[in-house]
Amino acid sequence: MTQTLQTEDNVQSPSLPTFDDVRGAAKRIEGLAVKTPLLESPALNEHVNGRVLLKAETLQRTGSFKFRGAYNKISQIPEADRPGGVVAYSSGNHAQGVAAAAALLGLPAVIVMPSDAPAIKVENTRGYGAEVVFYDRFTEAREVIGSAIAKERGATLVPPYDDPRVIAGQGTCGLEIVEQTKEKGLALDALLVCCGGGGLTAGCALALEALSPQSRLYTVEPAGYDDTKLSLDAGHPVPHPKAPQSICDALLSPQPGDLTFEVNRSRVSAGLAVTDKEVKAAMRYAFRTLKLVVEPGGAVCLAAILAGKVDAAGRVIALTLSGGNVDAELYRTVLAEKD
Amino acid sequence: MTQTLQTEDNVQSPSLPTFDDVRGAAKRIEGLAVKTPLLESPALNEHVNGRVLLKAETLQRTGSFKFRGAYNKISQIPEADRPGGVVAYSSGNHAQGVAAAAALLGLPAVIVMPSDAPAIKVENTRGYGAEVVFYDRFTEAREVIGSAIAKERGATLVPPYDDPRVIAGQGTCGLEIVEQTKEKGLALDALLVCCGGGGLTAGCALALEALSPQSRLYTVEPAGYDDTKLSLDAGHPVPHPKAPQSICDALLSPQPGDLTFEVNRSRVSAGLAVTDKEVKAAMRYAFRTLKLVVEPGGAVCLAAILAGKVDAAGRVIALTLSGGNVDAELYRTVLAEKD
Repeated sequence: MTQTLQTEDNVQSPSLPTFDDVRGAAKRIEGLAVKTPLLESPALNEHVNGRVLLKAETLQRTGSFKFRGAYNKISQIPEADRPGGVVAYSSGNHAQGVAAAAALLGLPAVIVMPSDAPAIKVENTRGYGAEVVFYDRFTEAREVIGSAIAKERGATLVPPYDDPRVIAGQGTCGLEIVEQTKEKGLALDALLVCCGGGGLTAGCALALEALSPQSRLYTVEPAGYDDTKLSLDAGHPVPHPKAPQSICDALLSPQPGDLTFEVNRSRVSAGLAVTDKEVKAAMRYAFRTLKLVVEPGGAVCLAAILAGKVDAAGRVIALTLSGGNVDAELYRTVLAEKD
Repeated sequence: MTQTLQTEDNVQSPSLPTFDDVRGAAKRIEGLAVKTPLLESPALNEHVNGRVLLKAETLQRTGSFKFRGAYNKISQIPEADRPGGVVAYSSGNHAQGVAAAAALLGLPAVIVMPSDAPAIKVENTRGYGAEVVFYDRFTEAREVIGSAIAKERGATLVPPYDDPRVIAGQGTCGLEIVEQTKEKGLALDALLVCCGGGGLTAGCALALEALSPQSRLYTVEPAGYDDTKLSLDAGHPVPHPKAPQSICDALLSPQPGDLTFEVNRSRVSAGLAVTDKEVKAAMRYAFRTLKLVVEPGGAVCLAAILAGKVDAAGRVIALTLSGGNVDAELYRTVLAEKD
C-alpha cells in the first residue's frame, strides 16, 4: 500500500489528498465521530499568559482521533470488496479506530498488534469485535504480516497514516479546530500537532492552509523519535537513529510516510521534540489541573507548551490532545512520580 | 446567615431565589466561568442503550461547579463591605470557588477547612491566595468558627449552599444543560444532580422548571448521607443518621439547607443513593472509557446510571460530573481496585 512518490519540487502525485477530501470526510463521519470540544482552562491560560485551545480527541469515539481516518477510509471500500473485510497494523489507537469503524459498517476486521501493546488497547480492539494477531516489534515487520493477511483473506489494508483517505479523515480534526477557534472569535497564531507517521499533521495542514493560512503549524514528537523533524530539516523522509524506549507508544514510527511527508514538508513551520520526563509532567498537569486523562503520545503538545518550547505569551495556540488510551497501571506509576 | 423559613405549603419566603436570579447570575459569570461542554460518549450511550449527556463541571474554573455560586455571591457584595473580604467553610470545592472568585474581584478570603480535607483542595485554595484555617470535623462546628471570623474581620460569609445568590449561581449550570440539550435537538427526560447541601440541585431545579418543565429531576447522594432523600420522603429537612465514613468528601452535609430544601421539595422527583463501591467503579469507568478525571462526589450520578438505579434505555438523561478535585494518591488507589 505504501507508495513511492516523486518528491522533487512542483511534482505532486495525483493521489495526494486535498482540502476537498477533508470536507468530504467531514460529511462522512458526521453523527458518528464525536465533534470533540476545543477546551480552555483558565489556569493553563494564566500559567502561560496566553490562550491555549485544547482539542480533546481523548473524548473521541475509541479514545483517540484515529476513528476519523479509519471510518473515512473503510466507508469508501467498494461493495464488492467488503466481504473480505479489513486488516490493519497498529500499536493500538489505529487498531481501535479501524475495529470500531469496521464494526459500524459491518465489515470483519483483523488487527496486527505488537505483543507489548498496552493491554487496554488490545482489550478494546477485541471489544469492538476485531480479531487480534500479535507480532514481535523488535524482530518482525508488521507491514509484511499485514500484507500477507490481506492477500490471504482478500481484505483491504487500512494503513495507519500513509493513505489519502486516512489523511483526509484525520484532517477533520484540523477543520474542527479552525472552525471552533473562529466561533470563539479568535485568530489562531499556531497549531501544535502530536506526530507519529504524520497523518494527523498532514490532514490538519490541509485544513489550516485552506482556512487559516496565517497560522503556523508545528509537529511535536518524542525525543529520539523525531523523524519528522529530521526529515523536515533534511527536505526528504529520513528515519530517526536508533533510540532508547519511549513512553509514547502511539508515536514510535520509524520515519514519516511518503504521502504525509509530501503534504507536510511545505506546510509545517518546524518540528519540536519532548522528553519522556516532560511528557509525564504534562500527563500529571492534565490530571491535576485539566482533569483530563491523556496518554503519553497524546500529551506531547501539552508537554511542549508547559516546557516552554513554544512561547504562548500573548498568543492563541491550539494543540491536539490526540488520545487517552493509557493503562491504569502506567497511569498510576506516572501519577506517583514527581515533576 | 442560615435562615429559618416557614415551610407550610403556599408560603414562600421572599428570599427564595427565582429563575430570574439564575438568568442574572449567568450574565455576571459570563466570560469568567467556563461554559463547560455537555459531553456524550458513544461507548456509554451504547452501554445503557440511551443518550447520556455529561455536564463536565470537572472542566470548570477551580475544577468544580462551585465557582459559579461563589462568584455570583461575591460580585454582589456592596463596595463598602469589600475591604473586610469574605470567609467560607468548605471541605474544599467551595473553598476553591470562593478563593478564586475573591481573587478575581480583589477581595481577601479566609477559608475554614476540615483538617482531613484532600491535600489538592487545600493546596489549590492557598494557590488562589486565600488564607486557610483548619478545624476538626468531628469535634468542632465550622459554622461557629466561620461566624467568629466574619465578626472579627468584618468579612462577609459566603455559605456553601444555603444562600439565594449561591443557589442562583449554581443554577447557571442547569441553565446551560437545558440550552445545550436543546442545541443538540434533544428533549430532556431527566436530570441527575450530585447532591450535598442541595445548592446545585436547587439552582438546576429553577432552570428546569422554567425551561424544561417536563423533565424529571433526581438527586444522587452517597449511601448513608442521603439526607435530601430522607427529607424529601419526610416532607421537611431532616438529618441523616450517623453513618460510616464515605469516600465522597464533597457531599457529606448533615442535612439539607432550609432554602435549598424549600426550593427542592416540590421540584425533585426522587432521591437516589449510591455506595462507595459504585462510586469507585464509576470513577474507573470515567478513567477508562470517558477519559475524564472525576472525584468521588462528582461521580455519584454516573454511578447511579452505571448501577442501573435509573433506567436510561431509550431515554435522554443529563447528569452532572460536578468536580474533579481528587488527590493523586486516592485516585491511584481507586484505579488499582477491581470492579
